[in-house]
Amino acid sequence: MSRKPAAGDARPGRAGPLRLRDMGAFHVGGREIELRGLPPRELLMAEGGQPVRVDPNGHYRVEQMYAQYFLADPAPDRPPILFWHGGGMTGAAWETTPDGRPGWLHYFVRRGWDCYLCDAVERGRSGFARVPEVWPEAPVIQTAEDIYERFRIGQPGEAGQRSSQPYANTRFPVEAFDSLVRQMVPRWTSTDAAVLAGYLALLEKTGPAIVVCHSQAGVFGLRAAHARPDLVRAVVALEPASIPVLESHRPYRVPTLVVMGDNMDTDPRWPRMRARIRGFADAHDPVRLLSLPESGIAGNSHMLMMDRNSLEIADIVHEWLAG
Amino acid sequence: MSRKPAAGDARPGRAGPLRLRDMGAFHVGGREIELRGLPPRELLMAEGGQPVRVDPNGHYRVEQMYAQYFLADPAPDRPPILFWHGGGMTGAAWETTPDGRPGWLHYFVRRGWDCYLCDAVERGRSGFARVPEVWPEAPVIQTAEDIYERFRIGQPGEAGQRSSQPYANTRFPVEAFDSLVRQMVPRWTSTDAAVLAGYLALLEKTGPAIVVCHSQAGVFGLRAAHARPDLVRAVVALEPASIPVLESHRPYRVPTLVVMGDNMDTDPRWPRMRARIRGFADAHDPVRLLSLPESGIAGNSHMLMMDRNSLEIADIVHEWLAG
Repeated sequence: MSRKPAAGDARPGRAGPLRLRDMGAFHVGGREIELRGLPPRELLMAEGGQPVRVDPNGHYRVEQMYAQYFLADPAPDRPPILFWHGGGMTGAAWETTPDGRPGWLHYFVRRGWDCYLCDAVERGRSGFARVPEVWPEAPVIQTAEDIYERFRIGQPGEAGQRSSQPYANTRFPVEAFDSLVRQMVPRWTSTDAAVLAGYLALLEKTGPAIVVCHSQAGVFGLRAAHARPDLVRAVVALEPASIPVLESHRPYRVPTLVVMGDNMDTDPRWPRMRARIRGFADAHDPVRLLSLPESGIAGNSHMLMMDRNSLEIADIVHEWLAG
Repeated sequence: MSRKPAAGDARPGRAGPLRLRDMGAFHVGGREIELRGLPPRELLMAEGGQPVRVDPNGHYRVEQMYAQYFLADPAPDRPPILFWHGGGMTGAAWETTPDGRPGWLHYFVRRGWDCYLCDAVERGRSGFARVPEVWPEAPVIQTAEDIYERFRIGQPGEAGQRSSQPYANTRFPVEAFDSLVRQMVPRWTSTDAAVLAGYLALLEKTGPAIVVCHSQAGVFGLRAAHARPDLVRAVVALEPASIPVLESHRPYRVPTLVVMGDNMDTDPRWPRMRARIRGFADAHDPVRLLSLPESGIAGNSHMLMMDRNSLEIADIVHEWLAG
């Protein structure tokens, strides 16, 4: 194995070193809580270390969000892109593809955008809160079988069994499916308000920005745009997992591109969701729906930013954002 | 808030854009497991979405490790540095300081090193396994009070209360203590073998490397060096939380620098650990112990890479590695 695990984007004009004005990370948002009345535990924290009496009573910071930034050089004359990942995922979803090609983060930094890679509240480097004292429910972890089916890599298999039949036209790098499974992490289903609050705290810190969001985060992207049109310049929602019910006393007015993949008709859930997304786009002038198969691009899974044509889709998004 | 949240390192010769040959991320190691006989849950995964029957029976990938790489340009003629964080932390520990100065990742990339930023198995973007089916015990989360005391920012307060008395000579940016608390995440105390396996899998992927490790990871750094002297060229252990018991049928032979901070004498645990570390250094020729206060550098906390003089310590480490 060489010391260059991923090849750079070798297309003309995009090779050579990556130049950054700066990079770094921070946490935003969250709240302080206090727990009392819990029993202490006696624990050996490190092999050969001394047993430590761990007293869980005291103060904690919970529901903060982690963001990592990569600032292009020279400084662009356009707002930064915030990448918001889907359910059961982390910021890693945007960094690379399961088969080791450059991810969208890499692409957009190379195209001169300032980029913020986020781990949603509860996920990745954001950390999670105690269960059940702070968050009452246990998290959910998807099985490989569920990922294969719900991300539309192949048709549903028999109950609890992974189908070995990917869609005939799939663009997902099926040989690297295990690498996708490895990047999935536990998620909660009761933390939506905290997740959205984290994203809004980030927008207040960055100032006006573009939100590129996927699946579960589609809901947060649309909600954030509706709540803070002064801070969200545009939304690119890749296969939003749902359309939130937005307060109707003011219109949704942020330019929004919704991108949808292929092979929805054989899925038990997507046709209904697609109909809702169509209804949302029809009802709101600034929302454009791009159905890839209807545009002649067949075979995309739910993981558009990981499919074999991920950079073609990134080109479409870049052109739309630049326009 | 500007779009440049952290200032670059402005010292002569280190300003200007950061040049990278490449950056990206991957997961290594871990294993596939299968769970059967668990009850399904009916869950609403996204607001306005359709209720989903989540069947937890099936296959999972557990105990993989996430690593993010930043490759300097031009390519260095020396091995890469792997950054291994301490207990309750993630790779974020190396990215920035609580008060927003550049972290060691930034420093070493700018000094021309290829760098791999790791989230240990169970932490951050590596994800964690189901409790109690895979990992029997609940994780531990440190209170702010515990962090304040055990990281030697100030003397222990009354039970369960945060002391408001930092050490008089402390170099820790105490005004930003809350930012440190925000980056702490849950940890397990029963996963050492899996964590070490993840680090060894990374070493096999990167090839020969330097390990810069902190606190809990000191144990893993020393263990990895002893197990694979062919893959670990040097270890820099910042305040290792313990010294592992190494098999004695072959000597420990990897050049190792152990760096220790100040204000240990008033702590209930550190004097004994310091004695063990001294004994380890005395018993092994390639191990050098650098006690900062004994070298005239006073006031460092357990968080050497975050203290106000963090880049001075980085300079010392850089010089030792380059030598």
